[in-house]
Amino acid sequence: MKTEIPYKIYLSEAELPKEWLNLRAFMKDKPAPLLNPVTLKPMTEEELAKVFCDELAKQEIDDQSKYIAIPDEVREFYKMYRPSPLIRAYCLEKALGTPAEIYYKFEGNNTSGSHKLNSAIAQAYYAKEQGLRGVTTETGAGQWGTALSMACSYFGLDCKVFMVKCSYEMKPFRREVMRTYGASVTPSPSITTEVGRQILRDYPDTNGSLGCAISEAVETASGLEGYRYVLGSVLNQVLLHQSVIGLEAKTALDKYGVKPDIIIGCAGGGSNLGGLIAPFMVEKLEGRENYEFIAVEPSSCPTLTRGKYGYDYCDTGKVCPMAKMYTLGSGYMPASSHAGGLRYHGMTSTLSELYDKDYMSARSVKQTEVFKAAETFARVEGILPAPESSHAIKVAIDEALKCKESGEKKVILFGLTGTGYFDMTAYKAFNDGEMQDYVPTDEEIEKGFGTMPTVNLK
Amino acid sequence: MKTEIPYKIYLSEAELPKEWLNLRAFMKDKPAPLLNPVTLKPMTEEELAKVFCDELAKQEIDDQSKYIAIPDEVREFYKMYRPSPLIRAYCLEKALGTPAEIYYKFEGNNTSGSHKLNSAIAQAYYAKEQGLRGVTTETGAGQWGTALSMACSYFGLDCKVFMVKCSYEMKPFRREVMRTYGASVTPSPSITTEVGRQILRDYPDTNGSLGCAISEAVETASGLEGYRYVLGSVLNQVLLHQSVIGLEAKTALDKYGVKPDIIIGCAGGGSNLGGLIAPFMVEKLEGRENYEFIAVEPSSCPTLTRGKYGYDYCDTGKVCPMAKMYTLGSGYMPASSHAGGLRYHGMTSTLSELYDKDYMSARSVKQTEVFKAAETFARVEGILPAPESSHAIKVAIDEALKCKESGEKKVILFGLTGTGYFDMTAYKAFNDGEMQDYVPTDEEIEKGFGTMPTVNLK
Repeated sequence: MKTEIPYKIYLSEAELPKEWLNLRAFMKDKPAPLLNPVTLKPMTEEELAKVFCDELAKQEIDDQSKYIAIPDEVREFYKMYRPSPLIRAYCLEKALGTPAEIYYKFEGNNTSGSHKLNSAIAQAYYAKEQGLRGVTTETGAGQWGTALSMACSYFGLDCKVFMVKCSYEMKPFRREVMRTYGASVTPSPSITTEVGRQILRDYPDTNGSLGCAISEAVETASGLEGYRYVLGSVLNQVLLHQSVIGLEAKTALDKYGVKPDIIIGCAGGGSNLGGLIAPFMVEKLEGRENYEFIAVEPSSCPTLTRGKYGYDYCDTGKVCPMAKMYTLGSGYMPASSHAGGLRYHGMTSTLSELYDKDYMSARSVKQTEVFKAAETFARVEGILPAPESSHAIKVAIDEALKCKESGEKKVILFGLTGTGYFDMTAYKAFNDGEMQDYVPTDEEIEKGFGTMPTVNLK
Repeated sequence: MKTEIPYKIYLSEAELPKEWLNLRAFMKDKPAPLLNPVTLKPMTEEELAKVFCDELAKQEIDDQSKYIAIPDEVREFYKMYRPSPLIRAYCLEKALGTPAEIYYKFEGNNTSGSHKLNSAIAQAYYAKEQGLRGVTTETGAGQWGTALSMACSYFGLDCKVFMVKCSYEMKPFRREVMRTYGASVTPSPSITTEVGRQILRDYPDTNGSLGCAISEAVETASGLEGYRYVLGSVLNQVLLHQSVIGLEAKTALDKYGVKPDIIIGCAGGGSNLGGLIAPFMVEKLEGRENYEFIAVEPSSCPTLTRGKYGYDYCDTGKVCPMAKMYTLGSGYMPASSHAGGLRYHGMTSTLSELYDKDYMSARSVKQTEVFKAAETFARVEGILPAPESSHAIKVAIDEALKCKESGEKKVILFGLTGTGYFDMTAYKAFNDGEMQDYVPTDEEIEKGFGTMPTVNLK
C-alpha cells in the first residue's frame, strides 16, 4: 500500500535543487534565436550584455548546458520561502466528487505573492555580482515589480520600476509594497524618458501599456552608469530560473511514487508554465514518459490557440530584440482583463516551439468561468488564488470532472502561481455579477497580425 | 554539536497537536469568572449558551480540564495550513549584528492572513455540530471576519458579519474577501438592528465602533432561529484554541534542543499572546522554567501598562457579560491607530491575572517605531508583517540589540501573527512620513476609568 500522502508535501531545505534545468538544451529542435531588430541577425552575447547583466546575457543564449548551478547566495534566499509546498487538493477532490487525484504546486507563500521571486532574486544576484548599482524594469499587474523590489532590497541594489499608468492608479497597494521595499515606482508613460515624453505628446490621455513601460525601463537603464534592464517573463533565462518549480514538484511526487497524467499551467509570457513542466518535458522529449501538458490562456488574449508562429517584436516600442514565437502581433490590444499577468501578445520561444511540435496543447478560457473556478477553489482549499493562477484551476477542475464521468483515476498536477490579495477589485466585479467576458473577433485578430514584421524571416 | 537549524522548521502533519492546552487549569489563582451585568452573579453555562454555542459555553467556564481534544474535523482543516512554520530569523540576526538567536512562529500563511483562523474553524465546527444554521460576529480590522467567513464556508454555515463602518469603507478589499467566501457584510451601525437604529438616531454621523458592532451582532443572533454569536478574542475559549500556536512552537524548538529566554507577542484582546505562551507559561507556573514573557501594546491603547485591574464591561453597549481584566474603561476611545486589532480597551482575564501576579511583563510602543521595525523586518526576512504583529517585532529587535551591547546570546521567540497585505494604507502613511504617534494624557486615561462600573466588585 502507498504511504499516505499528506495535505502538504514539504521538501527539506537540503532537498532544494542545486541546479536549474535548461530545457532548451534537451530539445533537438532548438527555439529560434533572438534577432537584432536592425540587422535582423542573431543577437550576440556582447549585444545582449549592453542591456542585460553579463551572466544573464550568457544564460540567454546558452542552449547547450543542461544544468546550471544555482549560486549559493540565491539558494540561501530561496530558503526563506522554498521549497514551496506541493499540496494534495483533498478538499477540492471531495467537493467535485472526482476519482482523480489533484495536486498543486503553490508558489504564492511569499510576500511577492507569486513565482516571480524565483527569477527576481537570481537576476538581482547577478547584477550585484557584476558590481552594478541598480536595475530598471517594468511591471503591469505588479507581481514582477514587487518580486524585484524584494530581491533588490535584499542585495542592496537600487530598483526603478516603471508601472503601467492604469495599474499605478488602480493598484496603489501594490505600489506601496514596492515602496516599502525601497523601490522607486514611476507611472508610465512618464516625463523622465524620451520615449515617455514622445508618447505623452502623441497620446496625452493614454493609460500606458506594457510595451511603453518596457521602452522607458530600457532607455533609463542605458542612460545610467551601473544599471541594467531586467525582465520577468518570456526570456530563456527566466524559464531557466523558474525550473526550480518543476524540479521541486517532481522530487516531491517521486518521493510518494506519484506520476502525473496531466500537467496544467496558466500561460502569459510562459515563465511559470515553462518552469513547472521543465523536468517532466525532458522525460517526454526523451521518449520515457507521455505526460499531457496543457497551457491555459485567457480568451481575450489567445496567443497559442489563435496566434501565428513567427518572428515578432517583443515590445510595442520595438526597441527589444525580435523573437520567434506564437504571437498575436505586438500591436494587438488585448481587451481589459483582470488577469493582467496574462495579457502579453507573445509566448516564450521554448514553449512556442514545443507547442508547434505538438509536445503540449493549449486551451483558452473565459474570465467569468475562471473566477467561478477560483471561488470554488477558495471556498474548499482555503487559498484565495490570483486571477492568472485561476486559469489553471479552471482547466484542472474541468479535467477532474471528465474523470468523474469516465471513472478514470487520473493524476492531475497544476501550478498555483500566486495569491489574489491585490486583485480584490476583480473579485468584486465577479461578486457583483458585473464581470464581462471577451473573445476577440477574427477581424481583431487579423488586425493584430498586421503589426507583425513584414520582412521575410524564417 | 547541535544539529544545524533550518530557516523554517515545519512539523509533520502527524505532529499537529491532538489537544488544546487550557492554561487556566494550570493556574492556582484562577482568572475571575464572567459576571451577568444585571444580576452581577457569575454567568452560568446555561446563560452563556443563550449567546454562544453549547460546547463553547462549556469551554468558556471550564477552568479545570488541562487539555481538551481537538475534534478530528478541526484537525483536518488545520492540515490545510498547519503546522505553521517556526522560522529562524537568520537574516534579521545578521542585519542587526546580534549574537541573539531569533525565532518567530508565523501564523500568516493562510488566506485569512492571521492566527484568527485557528479559533474561527473551531467555533464554526461546534456551531455545525449543534445543528445551527449560522453565526453572527463583528469585525474591526477585518482579520477575524475573514477567518470566520472561511470557516463558515468550509462547514456550509451562514455567516453575518457586522463590520465597523469606517473599516467597511476604508477596507473594501477585506470586505470583498469575506464576500468571496459567501459571508454577508453589513456596515455597523446599521438599520437592521434596534441598537443600530438607536445609535444612528443619536449619532447620525458616527463611523461606528467595535462596541456597537458587537451589540448588533449579538442582537441579530438572538433574533434568529438557529444562530449564535461568536467572538474572535478576549474569551477563554479563544485562548484555548489559540494554544495550538504555542504547542507547535514548543514542539519545534524542543526538537532542536532550543530553549527560549524571552517570549514576545503583541497584545490586543490577548488571543495570540495567550496561545503562544500557553505551554511555556505552564512550565513557569510549575516552577520548572523561568521564561521572560513580554506583552507589547500600542502607546495609544496601553491596557496593561496604564490600565486598572478590575471588573469592566466588555462592550460599549454593555450587553455582554462583565469581565475582570486590565482595562482602560469601556468608554475609553483609543486614538485612530493603524493596528486596528490592538485597539481593545481590555485584556483577556487569564493574561490580566498572570500580569497582575508578575508572571509576565508589558511594554507599550509608538506606531512610527513599530513601522520602522516592520520595514527593517520586511526587507531582510521577506515577509511583509501586519501592523499588529510588528509590535512584537519592534520589541524583539530591541531585545536583540540589547544582546548586541551586552554580548549575551539570548534566544528570543516572538509571534508573527499575520501579514500586512490589507494594511497598505498604513504603510503608505509611513512611507510618506505622515504617520502620527499618539500617547494619551493622564486626563484622557482618567476619563476612561470613569466609564468603569461603579458597583463594588472584588
